[in-house]
Amino acid sequence: MSPKVAFLGPEASYTHQAALDTFSPDKYTLTPQTTIEDVFAAVQDGSVYRGVVPFENSTNGSVVFTLDLFADLHSKYSDILVCGEAYVSVSHCLLGLDTSVTSDYSKIKKLYSHPQAWGQCKTFLQQHLKHAERFDVSSTSRAAQMVAEGNDPSAAAISSKVAGTLFKLSLLSEGINDVSGNQTRFLVLRRRDTSDESTPTSAPSTTLDVEESPYAEDCKTLLLFTLPYTPSNPNPGALAQCLSVFGRYKLNLTSINTRPSGVASWEYIFFIEFKGRKEKDGSGAVNAAFKELSGVCEWYRWLGSWENRQPAPVCLGI
Amino acid sequence: MSPKVAFLGPEASYTHQAALDTFSPDKYTLTPQTTIEDVFAAVQDGSVYRGVVPFENSTNGSVVFTLDLFADLHSKYSDILVCGEAYVSVSHCLLGLDTSVTSDYSKIKKLYSHPQAWGQCKTFLQQHLKHAERFDVSSTSRAAQMVAEGNDPSAAAISSKVAGTLFKLSLLSEGINDVSGNQTRFLVLRRRDTSDESTPTSAPSTTLDVEESPYAEDCKTLLLFTLPYTPSNPNPGALAQCLSVFGRYKLNLTSINTRPSGVASWEYIFFIEFKGRKEKDGSGAVNAAFKELSGVCEWYRWLGSWENRQPAPVCLGI
Repeated sequence: MSPKVAFLGPEASYTHQAALDTFSPDKYTLTPQTTIEDVFAAVQDGSVYRGVVPFENSTNGSVVFTLDLFADLHSKYSDILVCGEAYVSVSHCLLGLDTSVTSDYSKIKKLYSHPQAWGQCKTFLQQHLKHAERFDVSSTSRAAQMVAEGNDPSAAAISSKVAGTLFKLSLLSEGINDVSGNQTRFLVLRRRDTSDESTPTSAPSTTLDVEESPYAEDCKTLLLFTLPYTPSNPNPGALAQCLSVFGRYKLNLTSINTRPSGVASWEYIFFIEFKGRKEKDGSGAVNAAFKELSGVCEWYRWLGSWENRQPAPVCLGI
Repeated sequence: MSPKVAFLGPEASYTHQAALDTFSPDKYTLTPQTTIEDVFAAVQDGSVYRGVVPFENSTNGSVVFTLDLFADLHSKYSDILVCGEAYVSVSHCLLGLDTSVTSDYSKIKKLYSHPQAWGQCKTFLQQHLKHAERFDVSSTSRAAQMVAEGNDPSAAAISSKVAGTLFKLSLLSEGINDVSGNQTRFLVLRRRDTSDESTPTSAPSTTLDVEESPYAEDCKTLLLFTLPYTPSNPNPGALAQCLSVFGRYKLNLTSINTRPSGVASWEYIFFIEFKGRKEKDGSGAVNAAFKELSGVCEWYRWLGSWENRQPAPVCLGI
């Protein structure tokens, strides 16, 4: 049986698209999961070979659910590593049952979508659908499915064209996102294995395994750390000190994210991503930076290194 | 007529609580607004004296809608400054019409709340209400209002106790947030005026005006900046360089946030907050740091300085 790849479902979700772009259905069995946490759990318990989860949208920012699973407050996913990424163009459509709506959006009373989509279609919604009540569902394709099953012509979904086709809905409006060039980035997850210590992995190879990338500068690394903060010793400049380590080793920071620590109110976990990869033999700039970082942060965790797949930057059509 | 204060409504929202804690109803007329952007607009056009908006939750992180309004891509809110903050304890309750539900949550089929609340009650929802469909509405108090008006005993809202009282709903469960000590921080907005250049303001004073705070170290300052990034010159270490400025002036960073720039995909706007205040006469560490920052960032904008109201950190009950 071909190796399983778990992705945030249902079918026709943007995550499904990312999984299809990365793992050929000829070689892999793609299995939809209900939540992002279900994908993490399937990778952690070894029941799937890889997992695919959304990480960041170019208009709407980070997917905080994914960040919080990496933060892993209860140590449930301590073997999860990132081993690849995929960028998918996101073009939202308004989908419904009643085609007469295309000329009169006032007929739409109920709107279904994933919360991220509201933030990506603000202008269209403000202009045409301010009157409609919004209902949050678990994915854009689930929204399309609900409208298809509901038989209510006053209901519409914001979802992808492929979901509209799958669920036989009418395309009421196309490309309704605020900016053209809207993309979502997905991460490919694997379980930490013995190859992370010494021997090469025997798992099937994919083009996303960092081992296949010849140059460290073509890779990205994700890291989380916390600061040695106590109320009595707020340690001015601790965050800047931690970040300056990466500048000294010429490791270009590509993103930074903050999430509540979950341990004490108003304390944070920091996620940084930078160009470069952690070498398995302990050599190189990334390992040297980690060593220096450990002297200034409270603790850190390497979350993986993988081949950079970012397309050339797009100037947004606004 | 007393000065108006706009807040994110409806009545009995947590933002209403923050507005009441800061502005006595004896002296101010508190006026609810439908969206966070409506609060910004009312402050910008001078139709209200102050505005109150949610900024950050201690469990669930930043309110990205507020950050994006500060980012102000279309230069609509260029006169908005932060002049104060308020911390409100958030204790979510499950509210409904059918009191027999307290012993059997399976009767609840529909759940209404603000998207932030799902993230704050994950454990309770996972344990008792995984089966219920979630509907996203504009505020927790709106959720309570909808359940009260709906007459559907299978519907419930996650909202505050005060909203339950206001809308005459039964308290099905209390304190259902994942962590005790859950708080939300709100910001008080004002319009930039001549006092920011030289003369003192003639507007009514509030205890939140930074001018009344004697020590700069009791203040916080919010700032946004962008990096001089181009695809051909990715400028390794630019972010660390910008942040190290604050360390050099002993300005302790209290938070950092990133949002998509809205100008090009995968470029960011950075928000930092630190202890200290910008002096009007151009003196002091903050003005010196800003001068140095302007040499390394692409551009920056001061978003205000105000008196720190953060309560002592709370260890979360998890």
